Amino acid sequence: MTGKYAHILGMQGYPLTNTEDRGLPTSEKILPQYLKELGYATHLIGKWHIGQSRTEYLPTSRGFDSHFGHRGGYVDYYEYTLEERLENADVSGFGLFRNETAAWDVEGYLTDVYSREVISIITQHNISSPLFLMLAHNAPHSSNAGAMLQAPPEEVRKMRHIESGGRRIYAAMVKKLDDSVGYITQALFDKGILDNTVIVFIADNGGMTSGDSMNYASNWPLRGLKMSPFEGGTRVVGLVWSASFNNSNHLWNGYMHVTDWLPTILSMAKGNSPKNINGIDQWHNIQFNEDSKREEMFEIDDYTGYASITSGDFKLVTGNVIVAYSDYQGDDLRRISGDRPSYMDAIVNSKLYNILHKINRRLKFEDINLRNEMCINCDSDRITTCYPQNGTVCLFNIKDDPCEAKDL
Amino acid sequence: MTGKYAHILGMQGYPLTNTEDRGLPTSEKILPQYLKELGYATHLIGKWHIGQSRTEYLPTSRGFDSHFGHRGGYVDYYEYTLEERLENADVSGFGLFRNETAAWDVEGYLTDVYSREVISIITQHNISSPLFLMLAHNAPHSSNAGAMLQAPPEEVRKMRHIESGGRRIYAAMVKKLDDSVGYITQALFDKGILDNTVIVFIADNGGMTSGDSMNYASNWPLRGLKMSPFEGGTRVVGLVWSASFNNSNHLWNGYMHVTDWLPTILSMAKGNSPKNINGIDQWHNIQFNEDSKREEMFEIDDYTGYASITSGDFKLVTGNVIVAYSDYQGDDLRRISGDRPSYMDAIVNSKLYNILHKINRRLKFEDINLRNEMCINCDSDRITTCYPQNGTVCLFNIKDDPCEAKDL
Repeated sequence: MTGKYAHILGMQGYPLTNTEDRGLPTSEKILPQYLKELGYATHLIGKWHIGQSRTEYLPTSRGFDSHFGHRGGYVDYYEYTLEERLENADVSGFGLFRNETAAWDVEGYLTDVYSREVISIITQHNISSPLFLMLAHNAPHSSNAGAMLQAPPEEVRKMRHIESGGRRIYAAMVKKLDDSVGYITQALFDKGILDNTVIVFIADNGGMTSGDSMNYASNWPLRGLKMSPFEGGTRVVGLVWSASFNNSNHLWNGYMHVTDWLPTILSMAKGNSPKNINGIDQWHNIQFNEDSKREEMFEIDDYTGYASITSGDFKLVTGNVIVAYSDYQGDDLRRISGDRPSYMDAIVNSKLYNILHKINRRLKFEDINLRNEMCINCDSDRITTCYPQNGTVCLFNIKDDPCEAKDL
Repeated sequence: MTGKYAHILGMQGYPLTNTEDRGLPTSEKILPQYLKELGYATHLIGKWHIGQSRTEYLPTSRGFDSHFGHRGGYVDYYEYTLEERLENADVSGFGLFRNETAAWDVEGYLTDVYSREVISIITQHNISSPLFLMLAHNAPHSSNAGAMLQAPPEEVRKMRHIESGGRRIYAAMVKKLDDSVGYITQALFDKGILDNTVIVFIADNGGMTSGDSMNYASNWPLRGLKMSPFEGGTRVVGLVWSASFNNSNHLWNGYMHVTDWLPTILSMAKGNSPKNINGIDQWHNIQFNEDSKREEMFEIDDYTGYASITSGDFKLVTGNVIVAYSDYQGDDLRRISGDRPSYMDAIVNSKLYNILHKINRRLKFEDINLRNEMCINCDSDRITTCYPQNGTVCLFNIKDDPCEAKDL
């Protein structure tokens, strides 16, 4: 949002609780504000989570024309509540808002609810101005303790080939996310603006493979999970699509830090980036598959008490990591107990495939190789497994050893 | 099932896992076998959980004409799987069976699925023979870790007046149980056999207010939960109804142990009880609100390592209890955050109310006092809270102090 490292702004460490009187400093100018200056209509649907205790912290005070969504870390997918421990008692509150008002009237599975809101914004958009639409889905985040994973039962049923019951629900949650991409792309097509739209699809962190907020995701074979400095917690996939791209079906392998999105998106919008930020404009390099402009990345979590620095091929981790979040997990979740449905059928029957067909940007099956290129395989001969603790520092070559098995 | 204490048969302690090669000894004659001798058709729908590793342990080998249901402690409400830890790995298996075959074809919310099966048996029953139908619902047991509580979202939505999100789902699960009673009573009415039917509705243990299998039940103000020897774990409600009862709308307050159901049900069916059991025929006393014939109850859990003996008004607890299962819990789950829907409306609109109306056994609103009479209130001046541990023995007067606060 700011193009700056969280630790520069005091936002590092544990995420905000819903009852916390803290927010992203209002002195910061954020992405939708820059885009408004470029004439964009700006809308946020979904998660905010960078301050809600005062009106000035809310998205509608910070550059978004509208916000429909949850303000905290997550909500229940049907009841839109979040539970929190507050002074030794569990409290539960309604967490879905339309701008500054609780959205009591809403019903339905949250991923669908958000898709519908997005479609409604697209449909009603006056195309005389450009549109910046940010959708931060609740899925596939876990929910409150009694019902951590939630998906419509008929969607879960489609995942019967997956052995783990929790993973089956997780898969259905991700499938609903996929559907959302289809619905929204269809709305852009129907509105006649798809051929002039850039779609950016990104993850914010690795999966939570165990612990309190486990959602049955798997980062295997990467090491660690969300809440850890290892690649399983920090290395995520992303996708940029535009009908205007030519001969650019490629896997871009460069470093890209979350702070880079602000200047990169401003560059897409032909705006100027601010000077005093940590983010780097990567738009040209991504489009033309050139080397990343980024050489270094920092991560500081003074709540847990660790830090990492990545420089070139090397990553140094120091401080104290939580061992339970720093192991190799999630392989067993990937077990299959029945016949896997056809991947080709799923693609051919998807909304997206059919839209791409209509705009003559047909998905070629050989492009599925891009997906295969993304796969990470690690040697099984792990020499050491280093845990930074009490002065022990670990150094990895994350290019040769992305699974962080060999301490150098 | 046997009329005998579990510890007499080696079935005390922790319940069977799904992978365990153990069962209720086949030398034991069980309730449906006795009833078959009296000419009954016998059907089990739902939970079995006393042995499944060999054909001879299954319900259909042990006196039931048919079994449709799960064989272990519980299953997922939509996917009918159960997950278990087996030799350091989590394994997941399909747990729903029609007689001796996996019921892969089934779809729907399990409480409804079981209701439909029961209705189908009633509808097809040849009334030339009497019918013993045992329905052991999965609800409101918790499910696998990722989705411990499950109910149709539209039913959960009706519980919006409840603050706790988990409790809301629990309430919806119980509401579906209520619906089941309505559907089944309707089927008995439609078949023309309701006026000649005895309905017994019983709970098997107190709620799981915390811990691994927490289902957001509350035993408040009783002490302890399932897995503990305190009243919150062992003192449950039950109901016996028959259209043939006259002037017998009463709260029967006597001791009744689960072993008493075998001789009591055989007595209802005008059969003879076996001699070598621990259960006591309470049929006459329940019907006519006379003193219980039972004076003593034992509970032995040598898995955890505790035992209790109840004699007259007194209960002695010895051994080691798990403290987390022996506290007062669940009061906070009962918090309300919205307008409570009308209790009277719920009754008047229920299937049951309307059926009772049709057979001239109308529910009188003043009978709701029976419900109020069941309420337990405890003094707040708790003198000691005794935890049996390392030789400490606790003695309570559970008549004067049902909340087990005062060690005598």
